Amino acid sequence: MHVTMVKKRLLSGDACKKCVEAEDLLRGRGLWGRIDRVVWAVEGDPASEGMQLGQRYKVATAPFFVLRDERGQENVFESTLKLLRAIATPPAPALATEVKASTVSRAPAPASDSSQPAGASQATVLLDGLDREEAVRIAAQLANGEPQETLRHLLTRFGSDCAIAFSGAEDVVLIDMAAHSGLPFSVFCLDTGRLHAETYRFIEKVRVHYGIEIELCSPQPQALQAFVRKKGLFSFYEDGHSECCGIRKVEALKRSLTQYRAWITGQRRDQSPDTRAAVPVLQIDEGNAGKAGAGVLLKANPLANWSSSRVWSYIRDNSVPYNTLHERGYVSVGCEPCTRPVLPGQHERAGRWWWEEATKKECGLHAVVAPHGDGI
Amino acid sequence: MHVTMVKKRLLSGDACKKCVEAEDLLRGRGLWGRIDRVVWAVEGDPASEGMQLGQRYKVATAPFFVLRDERGQENVFESTLKLLRAIATPPAPALATEVKASTVSRAPAPASDSSQPAGASQATVLLDGLDREEAVRIAAQLANGEPQETLRHLLTRFGSDCAIAFSGAEDVVLIDMAAHSGLPFSVFCLDTGRLHAETYRFIEKVRVHYGIEIELCSPQPQALQAFVRKKGLFSFYEDGHSECCGIRKVEALKRSLTQYRAWITGQRRDQSPDTRAAVPVLQIDEGNAGKAGAGVLLKANPLANWSSSRVWSYIRDNSVPYNTLHERGYVSVGCEPCTRPVLPGQHERAGRWWWEEATKKECGLHAVVAPHGDGI
Amino acid sequence: MHVTMVKKRLLSGDACKKCVEAEDLLRGRGLWGRIDRVVWAVEGDPASEGMQLGQRYKVATAPFFVLRDERGQENVFESTLKLLRAIATPPAPALATEVKASTVSRAPAPASDSSQPAGASQATVLLDGLDREEAVRIAAQLANGEPQETLRHLLTRFGSDCAIAFSGAEDVVLIDMAAHSGLPFSVFCLDTGRLHAETYRFIEKVRVHYGIEIELCSPQPQALQAFVRKKGLFSFYEDGHSECCGIRKVEALKRSLTQYRAWITGQRRDQSPDTRAAVPVLQIDEGNAGKAGAGVLLKANPLANWSSSRVWSYIRDNSVPYNTLHERGYVSVGCEPCTRPVLPGQHERAGRWWWEEATKKECGLHAVVAPHGDGI
Amino acid sequence: MHVTMVKKRLLSGDACKKCVEAEDLLRGRGLWGRIDRVVWAVEGDPASEGMQLGQRYKVATAPFFVLRDERGQENVFESTLKLLRAIATPPAPALATEVKASTVSRAPAPASDSSQPAGASQATVLLDGLDREEAVRIAAQLANGEPQETLRHLLTRFGSDCAIAFSGAEDVVLIDMAAHSGLPFSVFCLDTGRLHAETYRFIEKVRVHYGIEIELCSPQPQALQAFVRKKGLFSFYEDGHSECCGIRKVEALKRSLTQYRAWITGQRRDQSPDTRAAVPVLQIDEGNAGKAGAGVLLKANPLANWSSSRVWSYIRDNSVPYNTLHERGYVSVGCEPCTRPVLPGQHERAGRWWWEEATKKECGLHAVVAPHGDGI
Repeated sequence: MHVTMVKKRLLSGDACKKCVEAEDLLRGRGLWGRIDRVVWAVEGDPASEGMQLGQRYKVATAPFFVLRDERGQENVFESTLKLLRAIATPPAPALATEVKASTVSRAPAPASDSSQPAGASQATVLLDGLDREEAVRIAAQLANGEPQETLRHLLTRFGSDCAIAFSGAEDVVLIDMAAHSGLPFSVFCLDTGRLHAETYRFIEKVRVHYGIEIELCSPQPQALQAFVRKKGLFSFYEDGHSECCGIRKVEALKRSLTQYRAWITGQRRDQSPDTRAAVPVLQIDEGNAGKAGAGVLLKANPLANWSSSRVWSYIRDNSVPYNTLHERGYVSVGCEPCTRPVLPGQHERAGRWWWEEATKKECGLHAVVAPHGDGI
Repeated sequence: MHVTMVKKRLLSGDACKKCVEAEDLLRGRGLWGRIDRVVWAVEGDPASEGMQLGQRYKVATAPFFVLRDERGQENVFESTLKLLRAIATPPAPALATEVKASTVSRAPAPASDSSQPAGASQATVLLDGLDREEAVRIAAQLANGEPQETLRHLLTRFGSDCAIAFSGAEDVVLIDMAAHSGLPFSVFCLDTGRLHAETYRFIEKVRVHYGIEIELCSPQPQALQAFVRKKGLFSFYEDGHSECCGIRKVEALKRSLTQYRAWITGQRRDQSPDTRAAVPVLQIDEGNAGKAGAGVLLKANPLANWSSSRVWSYIRDNSVPYNTLHERGYVSVGCEPCTRPVLPGQHERAGRWWWEEATKKECGLHAVVAPHGDGI
Repeated sequence: MHVTMVKKRLLSGDACKKCVEAEDLLRGRGLWGRIDRVVWAVEGDPASEGMQLGQRYKVATAPFFVLRDERGQENVFESTLKLLRAIATPPAPALATEVKASTVSRAPAPASDSSQPAGASQATVLLDGLDREEAVRIAAQLANGEPQETLRHLLTRFGSDCAIAFSGAEDVVLIDMAAHSGLPFSVFCLDTGRLHAETYRFIEKVRVHYGIEIELCSPQPQALQAFVRKKGLFSFYEDGHSECCGIRKVEALKRSLTQYRAWITGQRRDQSPDTRAAVPVLQIDEGNAGKAGAGVLLKANPLANWSSSRVWSYIRDNSVPYNTLHERGYVSVGCEPCTRPVLPGQHERAGRWWWEEATKKECGLHAVVAPHGDGI
Repeated sequence: MHVTMVKKRLLSGDACKKCVEAEDLLRGRGLWGRIDRVVWAVEGDPASEGMQLGQRYKVATAPFFVLRDERGQENVFESTLKLLRAIATPPAPALATEVKASTVSRAPAPASDSSQPAGASQATVLLDGLDREEAVRIAAQLANGEPQETLRHLLTRFGSDCAIAFSGAEDVVLIDMAAHSGLPFSVFCLDTGRLHAETYRFIEKVRVHYGIEIELCSPQPQALQAFVRKKGLFSFYEDGHSECCGIRKVEALKRSLTQYRAWITGQRRDQSPDTRAAVPVLQIDEGNAGKAGAGVLLKANPLANWSSSRVWSYIRDNSVPYNTLHERGYVSVGCEPCTRPVLPGQHERAGRWWWEEATKKECGLHAVVAPHGDGI
């Protein structure tokens, strides 16, 4: 595959603004190296090579791309986003084949002694081409690594069958890392209908900045309407947030996950004094069903070992876009009525469900059904 | 029916706070006159009549209510809201009977000359007990009347089969008027998932203040997700608001309306230089289907003749709760990304879909399908 | 006087940004007509006329101006603001001469019958070249005219001895009108130390937009410190705003006015239900001392007859910069703790000193010492 | 001295609200132990002791205080604030005598070798009853102690001749500690005229909460007006903040300090990566003149060793009132245009003068004129 990019040079000597943006996007997605040749269309010079190419391919606007495949066949792209999808590295061949869920059934657990490594022999085939033993080995290997390594491993294996669950907060670093990998991936958000206006703007900003699709998962209106009709819009302040989260988040999450083989969260051990202290880097998601069936879903938490301050250094050092709420004292970000800024030096969880006890501050997305030591 | 209210008098001589609130709620709903007798439970005096009643009915908290019906049967209410529903005037008997949609079919239009008064003879039976001729007569009668008269007419006839479509803005005056009528009514809101946080708080405030149920109608996730995945969260700034309104508002409205025989909006003629200049007080909603079928739905706009300043005088004079956005320069209130404050002296519609042309500023809720002179 | 402006033309064919801004400023000040000739310095062409002029006058940056006076003497201006001051029309010659205050003494009032027109014969010489009879005649002539006419009259007569008292609100229209007149004028603001951050930003924006100097008058620290030490920073909520306004505004105003012969306010009759109902277009300021002594000071209220909505139409039609507070529900703007937004349809004075009675809502700047019919 | 407090008990059995607040204030100032006896005036019981005392001293409202001195003379206080001043421990007798500045002259430095402890022998008499040797000894003793110890030492010695320079930020902990000491002290703020509205509200809250006087020092209008007229209101963004701080802060500080013998700041070593790394707990202020003359002024920084997180723990643990800006992402707080919120994990100085280099972020209040090792 050979890719030619045609850029326009203006009379002033500068490249056109759209061409500059396209290059930025390609670099941001780690795909600039895939452009084999850049050709200039010089304003006012019809003889320039780019102008000639524009005429040959009947393209009137810059930038555009000519992609020639192994058989010499040429395709012209006027949309940088479409080009991105065409040249992003596909997942490893072994995984490209669709595998039927029935072949991935989990073997019944043998009568084993309890000293055996958690889950080690419970299943032979876990996901297409990945058995449980290998999963345990990979989990151990990634347990102390950098987030980028975890992401690369998963995206190489699962491609767009692997989704980042983006919360609209500082977990945007996962999208930044994935985008720079040049590998395909999916992104979804749980749109509870109660997010801050700033969060919706931020999600859109991320979508455009990285040139990615983001799936926004909404709650089912029947359950939601019945709940709100009965209890109003702020019942969580009275009887806790789990009912509302159940309807607005958990159900939508479960519905979404059925499209994927693996999902990636921004959970970190330092986020919650209690509930997240043992978050592993890689685990089998026993509580949710994936594309391949129940319990046959991987869940990765690449930032498990990172501290808040490390995440924020990454954001600043890499000019990653962030939610403007972070400029107003918000550290953790969730639904608008259930999130508030914290004081200097206060733990971020003081800004979530502050009217409830410290140890209950989870929305149920990451409920531990059957904890397995270090994750798998 | 005879209602006794038991209130508690504290040692300080004051009534207990909850008892005061209950009385306020009853007055606010126009139902204080339905309380036949007030009895005091005096703190520290077990011999006081209210204390005695508490003991007899095994009620430990004040206030409570004893309702005795015609046959002498007694019912005790500890919830003021439940009492409200029990004593609100039911709709007129003729309308209480459920009428099958098939009996309300519209007669085929006779071969008539086009000079005939709009719609006058198109249908004989329109809604149970209301034929088209009478509807036209009523519309003429209400056309120049006060909003309270229109509301009273509709609520007397349809009760909770008549719903106020509450937008979370200054149309709260309709709820205030309906609440003071002492008549039963329904309320729904279109919850697009993009309302201001202030609007959600206001809806809740109205729910509690008037002791009413409010139905929040959410969009269908399938259509919404497909739309947002493709176009992002702010496509309306590019290609207009009608697609987004269609998914987030219009579809939800149509779904809601199928529960009712009549609906009430806050539309006013002075709201839009162009699109609302001919809003009638009462009309047949030809574009939507009600409980009784397509086109057999009444639509009332009791505020059609009122000006913005008259509505705001009503709000101030009657201490009606209002959306706090109105304290920050917002006049009209819709979805967060599509609403903005206006400058002093600027028309309220300058704060809605400001990037589009003045004459297109309708969200499609009140699309005129087949205009019929003055409404019917 | 002959003025040449040298502008730079870039390779792209556009004029340089600073040159464009300079032209905008000159147009905004009504002085573009005073530029007799525009000469281009073409980038990359040292032979172009502008480049040659740059070399001759040793000027390295564009734009610059060459001003040749009647005697053929040349002055080069690299600052557009300095040029503005040099070419702004000076006041009428008769008034340019400095007149000693002693010569402007007010004649003692003759024994006159009370039916005589207010103040008509009280003084013969009022201000240099303006006696009281003429002042009365001018006041009558301007009473029903447009604000621009009043401004032109005063600025022609007094030039920079006439100051606009800018409040940081919609009275910016006065500055816009004065700036477009091409006549010299002064501007001052009372900086109470308690203005909104937005107001300070707006004052700066106006300064830069119109290329004018603005005097900010601060209170005397001794009186202020004693007051705040004793009563704290919000005593006005307890015992009224007059003491605070007296120290932070009135004293500073009186100090400022001693520099001028006339001052201009944004007072309008529609601003206050009571206190401003009789504001005249032109009056003698009996309560303050000007440059020429006590009571020898003119005060003009050119917007007296304009309504709020007319002022706002002017702002929108002429793209006049405005205080961003007006985008958040503020109509009237004063000190931060004493100003609040108003609801739709509410009178602007409801946003000022709202804890006090409606008829007392003046800060004392415009206290009526001795009202004289229609002003003079 | 014997103090009786008369409180009122209401019919409900509760103490009256004002009585409760008075007790809170006394406790908050560390002076509750000075109330020797509490007597109740029981509502509706004229024979109760408090009612009798009210009648005897002709006092109609509660609470009030009867203070009997050593000679049996009685004084009645109806104002809790006035009582506070009367019973606050006076400074040590030796320091109560006014000492003339001329007697506190600094001896010329003897020809000493440079290995001598900084400043040790430079002066014999520094401040009344405190020579330089003792100052060095005290500085060493307090260098690693708790802030409360430093405060107690200074307030015992100097009383209201010692002032806390309150910035309106988290240095409120100094006021809280001083208030709880029961010792007299002064407080001043530099009111630049550009503080946040929130900061003014906070200063007032502190004034009322602790029942203290706060001196607000304003800039001199002459210098300020000339500066702003020439450069506008935001020149610091162009040429640095030192000129503006010089006029709005430093001059006002110098003027204020001449009233005191010692001043106390909230400086901490962790505040600035560079400029505050060596802040001592106690030092001689060589750069400013106090009541006793130039260079005869002590400066204490009791929080020098505390970290931001320790300060914030103190605030939360002791329910100290704080500036609401801290709820919106602000850590450090200064003037409105020169302060901004910081992102999670960002150093607080990133929120001050962010357009300038990191090492220049001081406003000149604490300029090091002649650094002396560990402070003195």
